[in-house]
This record gives sequence, C-alpha cells and structure tokens, in this order.
Amino acid sequence: MSNNITLSLDDVKTLSLSVLTQNGYSETHAAAITDVIYACQLDDCHSHGLFRLFMCVDTMQGGQVDGHALPTITEPGPSVVKADANKGISLLALNEAMPRLVEKAKTQGMAALAINNCFHFSALWPEVEMLSQQGLVGIAMVPSHAWVAPAGGTRGTLGTNPLAFSWPRLEKDPFTFDFATSQFARGEIELYRRAGKPLPEGVAIDKNGKPTTDPEAAMEGAMLTFGGYKGSALSIMIELMAGPLIDDLTSLESIAAADGNTGAPYHGEIILAMNPEMLSGGKVAQNDERAERLFADIIDQGARLPSQRRYQARARNLERNALEIPAQLYQDILKLKG
Amino acid sequence: MSNNITLSLDDVKTLSLSVLTQNGYSETHAAAITDVIYACQLDDCHSHGLFRLFMCVDTMQGGQVDGHALPTITEPGPSVVKADANKGISLLALNEAMPRLVEKAKTQGMAALAINNCFHFSALWPEVEMLSQQGLVGIAMVPSHAWVAPAGGTRGTLGTNPLAFSWPRLEKDPFTFDFATSQFARGEIELYRRAGKPLPEGVAIDKNGKPTTDPEAAMEGAMLTFGGYKGSALSIMIELMAGPLIDDLTSLESIAAADGNTGAPYHGEIILAMNPEMLSGGKVAQNDERAERLFADIIDQGARLPSQRRYQARARNLERNALEIPAQLYQDILKLKG
Repeated sequence: MSNNITLSLDDVKTLSLSVLTQNGYSETHAAAITDVIYACQLDDCHSHGLFRLFMCVDTMQGGQVDGHALPTITEPGPSVVKADANKGISLLALNEAMPRLVEKAKTQGMAALAINNCFHFSALWPEVEMLSQQGLVGIAMVPSHAWVAPAGGTRGTLGTNPLAFSWPRLEKDPFTFDFATSQFARGEIELYRRAGKPLPEGVAIDKNGKPTTDPEAAMEGAMLTFGGYKGSALSIMIELMAGPLIDDLTSLESIAAADGNTGAPYHGEIILAMNPEMLSGGKVAQNDERAERLFADIIDQGARLPSQRRYQARARNLERNALEIPAQLYQDILKLKG
Repeated sequence: MSNNITLSLDDVKTLSLSVLTQNGYSETHAAAITDVIYACQLDDCHSHGLFRLFMCVDTMQGGQVDGHALPTITEPGPSVVKADANKGISLLALNEAMPRLVEKAKTQGMAALAINNCFHFSALWPEVEMLSQQGLVGIAMVPSHAWVAPAGGTRGTLGTNPLAFSWPRLEKDPFTFDFATSQFARGEIELYRRAGKPLPEGVAIDKNGKPTTDPEAAMEGAMLTFGGYKGSALSIMIELMAGPLIDDLTSLESIAAADGNTGAPYHGEIILAMNPEMLSGGKVAQNDERAERLFADIIDQGARLPSQRRYQARARNLERNALEIPAQLYQDILKLKG
C-alpha cells in the first residue's frame, strides 16, 4: 500500500501552470516558475518541487509581489548583467538575463548577474546547472530573512544564505552542491516541532541567546550557522555579495520589508559564471580528466559526491515519463485551484 | 620578564630581505616575499610572518623552486589575467599581475586572476586586502597537499584549501576573513603533538580511516574539513576552481609532485575581483551604509567581526614603529643567514 500517487511529467507541468495562473501569476511568470518546480520535482527534490506552490500562493496573498511584473535587463559593464525583477518572482528575470550572462562569460571569461527587487523562493541548483549545461562554472548566492545568529551572537541577523556551485563534467552529470549556511533549514526545525522531537545540539538558540534543543524556543530565538565561526563568516560574505554589493537588501532589511507577511522573501541574488575554456588556456579536456581523477579518488574511498541521488531520480523519472508524489500533497494542491 | 625582543619595522623588512637573498632568492623575489611577511608580522600574525622564512629556506633547499624565475603575464580574455610564476614563489607573479586585475575589475565590473605554476606559502588575506584597498571586493582560493579527507572518506584527498574574502568599508578597515576549510591547520596538529595533548573530537582520522584524537595518528592519517559535508563540498569547490578550472594541480597532484620534499606546495591560485561601483549601479555610499548597519547589528549583540585583532595590532605597531617577536624565533632566524 502506497500513500503516493503517480503523475505523468506533463501532468506536473500542467498542474503547476494551472495553480499559478489561477492565483495571480501571468502566463510568462507561471511558465518560468514551473520550469524550476518541474526540475526539482523531476529530481524527487520534494521540498522545492510542487510543494513550493503553497509558498507561491502565500506570497501572492501577501499582496506585495507583482504577478505580472516585466523584468528590466541592463548591462552596466562588459562583465555585468543586472536584471531588475520589478517586484516579480526572481525566475522570469533569471530566464531573461541568463542568455546574456552565458554570452558574457563565454566572451569575457568571467561575468556576474545581479537580480534585484525580486521575491525568491527557489532552490539555487537549477540556476547554477543552467551554467554548467553550457560548459561554464556557476556560483549563486541569496540572503533570506534574519533568522540566523552570527557566531558568538544572541539573535537573528543573517539569512539561511544558501551557496550553490556547479562544475560541468564532459561525460557526466555536473558536480553540483546547494546548501544553506544555517546548520538546519528552517523547514527542518518546523518538522521537529510538529513531531514533538528535540533538536540536536548546536542548531539553535532561544530568545535569550541561550542554546536550546526545543524547536518552539528555536523558532522564537534564532538558528545557528553550520561550521561555527567559519560558517558564520561565509554567511556574512553571502549577505554582502547578494545584498550591498548589488544594491539590494540584507536579510535584516528583507524581514523588515515583509512586515509580518509569510511567503517568499524579497531581496536580490548574485550569480557568477566562469569560462573554463579561457581560464584553462584552452585545455578543457585535460582538466576535465584531472577533475575526474579527483572525483574518482573521493568515490573510491566510499565518500559520496553531492547531488547523485537527484541524478538517479531524474534518470528513473525520465525513463518512466512519470513520478510519484504523496497523495495528500496532491489533494492539498488541488485545493489551491480556483 | 619577557621572552620577546623588539624590532623596528625597518628591521623586520631588512631581516627578511637578507635571509631570502642569502638563501637563493633574487632581490625582486625577496622584495615580493618580504611585502607579505612584513604585512603579516605587522598585524602580529605570527604564523605567517617572519616564521615563514623557515619555509622559504626549506622550499629552496628542496631544489624545485626557481628563486630567480620571472613571471609571464597574459590576458586570454577581457576579464581574465593569467600569471605564470614559472616555478617561482607566487608573490612576484601576484605583484606583477595585480594592477592588471584591478584595472580589469574596474573597467569590466568583474575579473579573475589565475596564478599558475607557483610555490605558495603565504596567507591569503594580504592578497584580498590589496583589492579592498582599491575599493574592490576580493575572493582568493588555493589548494595545498592532499592531507584532508572528504566527508565520509577515509584518507587525504583534499588540501587545507583556504578561502579568503575582503569587503572594502569606506571609513574603516575592511571586513576580511581567511580560513582553512580543514577543521584545524596542519601546524595546530603539530603543536598538539609536541605538547603531548589529545586533539578534540572531529578533527582527524587515523590511517585506517577511524576517528582519532592522537596527534601522531592524525599526522599519519588525515585531517577532516570544518562543517561536515558542507565544509567538504566547499573544499572540493576550491580544489576545482584553483586547480582544473585554471589548468593547475589538485592537492593530490601537488603532494605527488613534491616527491617527499617539505616546504611550500606547488600549485595554482585563483583570485576574483568585483567592482561595487558597477554592480551597485553607482550607489556605493548608500550600500556602504547598508553594510555598516549589518556589521553594527553583529557587534551590538556581542559577536565579533573577523580580523579585528589584526587591525588593532597593526595600529599599535605602526604607532610605535616597532613590534615584538619571540627572542628564540629571532635567534633561530639569524641562523638562516649565511
């Protein structure tokens, strides 16, 4: 007996498109959002797949997002693209700016894309994998809301500030990671709360800045970064690069701007793209072999490369042209339709 | 009673220059190396100050470094500078390429410098602070030798792989960090071994891949990364970006190339530079204020910004035009002179 239902891959897209267009998003926004929701669901990445439709609807109900906003793309320098999302979800701006980022990285060797004034709810790995699909190396960073304390601190200042990286492999799926710089994702703490289970040590502090394993106290207090003062420094780097560097909000400013609304946070994003052809002096094949020897040495000792479970799920789901989601999730999504 | 001796700032430079020129380094190499040794010693950063003269001499005695190598600088793309150190210490190549990196970042918005075929012994913060002194944001990465196991692994594959970042502040010393992605620096384990003290848990594994707190067993086994699988992923990113991306060695290849020699490892380095003027659309002052509000919120809760102790030491030592080093270190350095 399974509590899952099977959807064809087309059904996933149709379901996402219809929920979004019936909840205030234009056809173009719905298509851009569906691209990423579909990519995540195809990889059995449930937390960022169809489940995110609830956040998209919640964000619309908050009344701050513009579901019909048209992005404005500018090029303030030969290696810089800026995409102003004009208060839309980030993904339409991303899609429109991505070809220019790719072209700049290919011709200049290195380029940056800054997305501004966007609501952002999505995983970052689909964004850096757009670059590795083009033979480029990609790095992406976003702030979020000030839920995470700096090392040695007592309250939320930093976002969960994910960092994503993708490296193109000539014969294989890319080497990709995408992790929050908080020790836990915010949703994980919520799962512990619902299950009535204590958190591990070192994940959170209470509202007085004292260590806590109580999920309720953690939600009222602050989360901690991974890796102590080093993870905290990395998180501050992400705040600076995806915030003030590109003239956009810090996680402190983003949570203030939300004014109590839940839903996707409003802020900026930075994506860097590097061209191995130019940086290696034309020796891409030799250096692909060099990287493969590194990966082989990691795998040979029983360690795992990140994202491999996703790639296995992707291959399996593409093969059968269908995927499974929890039946209850499906029922709940149907209720989002008008 | 102090075991320190006082040196004038000029004495520090003169001592470094004379040791280096008497041990096989040309005047220009000795000057480039001394710049960084002096910068570190001025900040009371003892591990990377005059103490590193021993490593410079050790590297020369290994017979692989060219103390007179002249770097070759090329520009394979509008946003890429490549500096071939031609088997010299990295720092002369760095100094010669840095003005081109700065100019490219200022005119293009974003640029990368790849240093190739270099011996590298130095802290990375002086390199990224060269960029923040110019109003640019800097990131630097290097591999090292394969002493560090990936998360879930049993042997050394990765280097200690430091990551350095510097953010220019309009009115203050920059926000800078420079940390190894290994949990401990290799020298720290050596200090525990000499002191006969057990290591903390989670720092190292023995030669069979089992957790150990015995420093001796750790030196025969492998170190662990900070922050578990996230720190491990970050370390792999640094291997890829400072290795195969720029056509240079991984930490596995670097330790093999050393052929048992101690001294500075031989590999490459990547430095990224970003121009806030262009990325912020000309709003540097407003975004400096925004970053300062973030820093103020961190400090206000009793947390510390990295590098503050260095800046305090720098101010103190510049004020008195002198600094202190252990008397024994001074005696040992004098023995390096011919």
